[in-house]
Parts: sequence; structure tokens; C-alpha cells
Amino acid sequence: MSRGVLVVVSGFSGAGKGTIMKSLMAKYDNYALSVSATTRNPRPGEEDGREYFFRTREEFEEMIRQDQLIEYAQYVENYYGTPKAYVEEQLSQGRDVILEIEIQGARKIKKKFPEAVLVFVTAPSMEVLRERLVGRGTETAEVIHQRLARAAQEAEGVDEYDYVLVNDQLDEAVDRLHGIIQSEHFSMKRNLDFIHEIQAQAAKFTEN
Amino acid sequence: MSRGVLVVVSGFSGAGKGTIMKSLMAKYDNYALSVSATTRNPRPGEEDGREYFFRTREEFEEMIRQDQLIEYAQYVENYYGTPKAYVEEQLSQGRDVILEIEIQGARKIKKKFPEAVLVFVTAPSMEVLRERLVGRGTETAEVIHQRLARAAQEAEGVDEYDYVLVNDQLDEAVDRLHGIIQSEHFSMKRNLDFIHEIQAQAAKFTEN
Repeated sequence: MSRGVLVVVSGFSGAGKGTIMKSLMAKYDNYALSVSATTRNPRPGEEDGREYFFRTREEFEEMIRQDQLIEYAQYVENYYGTPKAYVEEQLSQGRDVILEIEIQGARKIKKKFPEAVLVFVTAPSMEVLRERLVGRGTETAEVIHQRLARAAQEAEGVDEYDYVLVNDQLDEAVDRLHGIIQSEHFSMKRNLDFIHEIQAQAAKFTEN
Repeated sequence: MSRGVLVVVSGFSGAGKGTIMKSLMAKYDNYALSVSATTRNPRPGEEDGREYFFRTREEFEEMIRQDQLIEYAQYVENYYGTPKAYVEEQLSQGRDVILEIEIQGARKIKKKFPEAVLVFVTAPSMEVLRERLVGRGTETAEVIHQRLARAAQEAEGVDEYDYVLVNDQLDEAVDRLHGIIQSEHFSMKRNLDFIHEIQAQAAKFTEN
């Protein structure tokens, strides 16, 4: 059995990343979604081990010391990180593991796992993104302004990603993401052991 | 409309490359198969413009002088080459163009078109390849020996390709090839214009 593909999915707030992930998980069963650890407090309805692993500051810093995180970062006063054990276990079982993290985390992953596939989710245009955020009617003008400012910041690093996924039609976006990940299984860099075996076999044809 | 993807498909003789291409063309209609030009004589049943553009040595050398070929090579005493006009026309119309050429040609294409996608078709093992060649019952032992020796030679350069396609189940191989090519449409390098536009739009959010 071949090793799973490690996939990092990032995207502008409001681009519909969360909905795409939920649909992908519901539609295909070869994916494992990594659950992050955090020191922030659970919000109403959030469950430990589902949305996040909720940890105390002391517990989180112990995970850092024990090298149990693939990457971690601090936002405002809270830690966020990706526990290593689950990811490694799922990959070695041949499942494709998806990390839903932001750009700084994505960079750290790519550095540590050069074979990771980085996908950036965007709306068809920034105007559409703004309209979606306003249209939700759940955020204040102040929050929308903050999110757009953050999107502007994130946009600067987008070209470091391997693929860009425009979320125009949800179903189409989900199938495209699935197609991207599955095609990665056939990339040369993931099949070098097989190719070296083929080369060794082929070399025998010229021996006699 | 976005530009088509230029795809180079190579593979060991006997790996079933031709059958895969035929099925791909029959199943999906967004592909254009490039027809090579050659100075070799047509075999029974071959038609000018279908299997090859059959040209005289003088005509072929005139095409070389006029820079009308993307790549060309000489085998034994014949020229083989890829006419430029058709490929450019199809790509600009958004169709994915497939060149079925061998490794030296593939290398030249990659150098001229770094965004080209190189796919190598192989049997699951060289023993299976040998069995397929023998099983056909149409080739002499001498020819089979020559083909395997050539496969051994070609195997050395396989790791220069972007993807490896194992032809075990035909339908599966065809769908995988389709998936690979379609996913390439979403690669960052093919969407830099779009990303730069998104970045320019996003920058405006921080201006006011």
C-alpha cells in the first residue's frame, strides 16, 4: 500500500474552505482531516477532539518540548498546532491527510514535508469575497473590514501554493480538489521506488 | 478561456500507450492529438494526416528551415517531428494537446515548454511487459529482444517525467490520465495571471 498524500488547504476567510472540506469528507472516504490543538477556549457547540484538541497552555508547551507537533504558531494570546502522531499514522495507512491551516503554517509544512501538496481556496474575485462576507449578515462592518485586510495580507503569499481552487460552484470545487489530490498519487516524486524497481528489472534485459 | 495543457505521453513499447490514447480520445472531447510529420513510407492502412503527415525528405528539411517544427529527430534514415502550427492553434483554443513521442523528443518539449506535462506509461512490471510482447504472437523473438533492449534504454530517463501511469486496468489508466491533465489546469504556474489580479484587488482593501 502506498503512503497517503499530505495536503494543506488554506484560503481566504469567506472563500468557503470549510464547506468544501465538509463536502469532500462526506463524499469520499479516503481522507483524514487533521484536528489541530489549541489553547483557546472552546466556543459553544465545539467538542474536544472534533473541532480542536483543547489544551492548557502548560499542556501545549509540553507538546512543543516533546516534539509532538508538526508545526505550531501563536495568534494573539493563543497557541495553535498540528499534532504529529495522527498525521503520521494516517499517512502510513495510505490515507490522504488534510491540514486546514493558514499560510505561515503551510510554509512550515512545505519546509518539513517537501512532498506536501498546498492548495489555496479563493472566491472568483475579491469583490465576490467581500459580497459573501457582507451577505452573511452575521459580522459587523468592523469584523468584515478586519477579514478583508487579513485577506489582502494572505494574498501576498498565495503564489507559494501548488494549486489554486476557485470556489464558484461547490460540487465542482469538491471534485476538483479530489482530482488534484488523487492525481498527486501518480506524480513521479511519489513513485521513485517503483521506478527504480522498473529500471533494475529493465537493466536485466540488456545483460544477456 | 484558459489555454490548453500541453501533454507529452511516452511509454515502453507494449505498455499499451496507443490503446490508452484511443480510449481517452473516444471518452473525452477536450483533447487534440498532435499528428507527427515523418519521411518514412506509409504502411498499409495508414493515411496522410491521420497516423502521420507523410513528407519527402526535401519537404521535411524545408519545415526545419522554416522553424515549423516544435521538435524533430532522426531515427535510422527517417525524420520524425511535431508540426508547430496545429499545436499552438489547439492550445490557444483551450484544448489540451497530446504529443505521443519518445524520450528525446519529450526532453526537447520540456525545454521549450517548461509548463508541459510529461507522462510516462508503463506496465506494472517489466516481466508483464515482456509477457505482453511475447503474448501478442506477432513479433519474432528478435524483434521482442530489440524492444526490450530499447525499453531498458528508455527506462533510464523515466524519472525526468512528471507522472507515471501504470497501465494495469485500461479504464482506470484512461481516467487517471484524464484526472492528471485536468488537475494541471489548476496548478499555480498556470494561474499566475488570475492570482496577480486577485492580489491587485486585495491590495485595494488595505488602501482605505
